[in-house]
Amino acid sequence: MIIDFNKIETTVLNNFKGGEKHYKAKMFSDENNKIMYGVLENGCSIGLHTHETNSEIIYILDGVGKMIYDDTVEILKKGDCHYCPIGHTHSLINENDEDLVFFAVVPEHNRK
Amino acid sequence: MIIDFNKIETTVLNNFKGGEKHYKAKMFSDENNKIMYGVLENGCSIGLHTHETNSEIIYILDGVGKMIYDDTVEILKKGDCHYCPIGHTHSLINENDEDLVFFAVVPEHNRK
Repeated sequence: MIIDFNKIETTVLNNFKGGEKHYKAKMFSDENNKIMYGVLENGCSIGLHTHETNSEIIYILDGVGKMIYDDTVEILKKGDCHYCPIGHTHSLINENDEDLVFFAVVPEHNRK
Repeated sequence: MIIDFNKIETTVLNNFKGGEKHYKAKMFSDENNKIMYGVLENGCSIGLHTHETNSEIIYILDGVGKMIYDDTVEILKKGDCHYCPIGHTHSLINENDEDLVFFAVVPEHNRK
């Protein structure tokens, strides 16, 4: 099936996971996966959170992101892929002028 | 963690899943996810296969792909996202001159 992000309404999530300002996302989800096209504008962030039963895979489409991952910091740019396996913690921050645009998948690994 | 595709060697898979010619992929995998940067050149395909315990999410980075999905055909271009949930069948074909480049995630949903 095609997930057409052009036809999915943008959801504006304020202080997402305790982050700064807002996170704009086009989201599709079912019982096994959350699939997102996400945008973080300058000064926006997704707060620190731990993936307990799922993981997250992020592919950067545009911009530059600062990722806090456990006790490390990663600088992510276009074409970079970040992986947060089960049990790990992360937070994504855009400190740059241009939008940080990414494609993300949050798969559930404990099948219901 | 960063998955740096620039540092991952390209694997050339001939007749992958029974497909035509070869599929070039840079792959990272652990027990829960397979994460790939994939290229199908003109005339190459990934053969028809069913996702039994996992699903697949594909984001098109460049080129045009023809996806057979169950009994439908999808034309996928840059920015399009294809989702093959558990229990469904698909095959990806490049019938165009330019390379079909994509980012793909195959999450396992039956956690071991």
